[in-house]
Amino acid sequence: MQATSHETPSHGMDLWVTERNEGTAFSFKVEEVLHSEQSEFQKLDVLKTATYGNLMLLDGLVMTTERDEFVYHEMIAHVPLSSLSKPAKRVLIIGGGDGGTLREVLRHPSVEEAVLCEIDGAVIQAGRDYFPTIGCCFDDPRATVLVADGVDYMKNAEPESFDVILVDSTDPIGPGVGLFTQDFYNNAKRALTPHGILTAQTESPFADHVGMSRIYDVLHDVFDHVTGYYGTIPTYPGHLWTWSFCTKSAEVNPWEAITADYVASLESVENPLKYYNYELHHGAFAHPTLVKTLIRPTLKPSARSLA
Amino acid sequence: MQATSHETPSHGMDLWVTERNEGTAFSFKVEEVLHSEQSEFQKLDVLKTATYGNLMLLDGLVMTTERDEFVYHEMIAHVPLSSLSKPAKRVLIIGGGDGGTLREVLRHPSVEEAVLCEIDGAVIQAGRDYFPTIGCCFDDPRATVLVADGVDYMKNAEPESFDVILVDSTDPIGPGVGLFTQDFYNNAKRALTPHGILTAQTESPFADHVGMSRIYDVLHDVFDHVTGYYGTIPTYPGHLWTWSFCTKSAEVNPWEAITADYVASLESVENPLKYYNYELHHGAFAHPTLVKTLIRPTLKPSARSLA
Repeated sequence: MQATSHETPSHGMDLWVTERNEGTAFSFKVEEVLHSEQSEFQKLDVLKTATYGNLMLLDGLVMTTERDEFVYHEMIAHVPLSSLSKPAKRVLIIGGGDGGTLREVLRHPSVEEAVLCEIDGAVIQAGRDYFPTIGCCFDDPRATVLVADGVDYMKNAEPESFDVILVDSTDPIGPGVGLFTQDFYNNAKRALTPHGILTAQTESPFADHVGMSRIYDVLHDVFDHVTGYYGTIPTYPGHLWTWSFCTKSAEVNPWEAITADYVASLESVENPLKYYNYELHHGAFAHPTLVKTLIRPTLKPSARSLA
Repeated sequence: MQATSHETPSHGMDLWVTERNEGTAFSFKVEEVLHSEQSEFQKLDVLKTATYGNLMLLDGLVMTTERDEFVYHEMIAHVPLSSLSKPAKRVLIIGGGDGGTLREVLRHPSVEEAVLCEIDGAVIQAGRDYFPTIGCCFDDPRATVLVADGVDYMKNAEPESFDVILVDSTDPIGPGVGLFTQDFYNNAKRALTPHGILTAQTESPFADHVGMSRIYDVLHDVFDHVTGYYGTIPTYPGHLWTWSFCTKSAEVNPWEAITADYVASLESVENPLKYYNYELHHGAFAHPTLVKTLIRPTLKPSARSLA
């Protein structure tokens, strides 16, 4: 009998990697373990998957895959950056060591400096080495890449020095925990320009309902104007993912400043947008009821901006 | 040493059930297998899961769970039913044997008759026996429950006899395959009132990009006015789920007829809507770019209905 080489990989091993979450598990078929290390902060693994391209795990949790990373990275960057009436010049990314958020921030032509502050240099190196389409932009002349603790950086940041702050963190456990505290958000608020926007990843109502509610408790304590938006990430637990949208000024309104022409200006032939578009920008704030209940928005669309 | 009964179930078995899809797998921790049978058409299993309530599998594929069924059932029913300028009187559900779509259709006070045509009586029985909050409405005086082949039913249906047809089918394999053909959709079109709407579940771009594109090829062949909408289903493969919205009349417009008051009239204290709401109705048509590319909408919002 001949080996059925089209059905099984040549090494013959049926290898899978699994992330468990509250009685569910999501697994990828793995072709090869490309890299594994214990960095100063966490366990970092890079795997070649059968159908999602390369996958990065931190402490065993899915951080990014080549196939679906566009959802997370387009959504965390373009929703706040397209919402400013005066386009952003200075943007801060806390975390985001794989480089995908930086790549999307740099689509915005107004951005003069994007500071990326990642605690773990090993993540940046893995982005460079194994995710060329994600970790593509660390050497861009508009990028400043720091390997430093985001909590400390935020504490010492110049007041009113950033138009947009993006918190592209891991879950509120391990090295990411300091990025979900009231102190951190107070410092971020101080570092924002008067019309600036803070956007943080804020988990999934299906994966961690209580944790998500706690994050919004803290955001409401710190910011007068809070809302959030949602997207669908096939490889994150719960899959219905959320990001916050917080400002100091009631004049900032994610539905007013944006224009279709501005969104069109973000397109590129080599690297087209695959998730975000002008209509989606509005729709992403039209939350499913279970999301709205957790976000408890205090920043609301004007009557004419959403039908 | 004492048994750590708070950490492991009393039977001591770490039981999981898994659905594989294109190099990924989604699993539920299982507390008990409640029911298994080979019906005339398919393998039917009901499992008690650790965190998603009872789960129904057909031929090993996830059909519904008590915890997240509301997304699918609210979305398939309320988007078309809230989009008619003259509220629906007669509604046809093809498939939908668990009863969740019927439950949501019956929230609409205008509905005089909802016909449910399910090929497999065993699914209806399992809905009654194991999913009391889903299979709750088979005996409603406005419900007509038929155990019959939806393909035949559609072939013989009276012309212009239904205001809304909902195709709540399995995937386009096994018993569901006939519900994705041009013949079936032509018969459905004939059975729709002049301003009627056909909505079918149309899979996920992340789980079956090619299959989803083929479904829309057929829908565009049959209907002059086609669009679709999306939602996030944590327990279906790909998770970014879609439904079609097809009509014979350019006057039917999912963004024009709906009012916030109408959506408020669907609420009930005992069984509140958890996903669908007035703003979400509009946002669900503001497709992520990868969805829009597959749906290729020919029915578009008027300028004033979506900002």
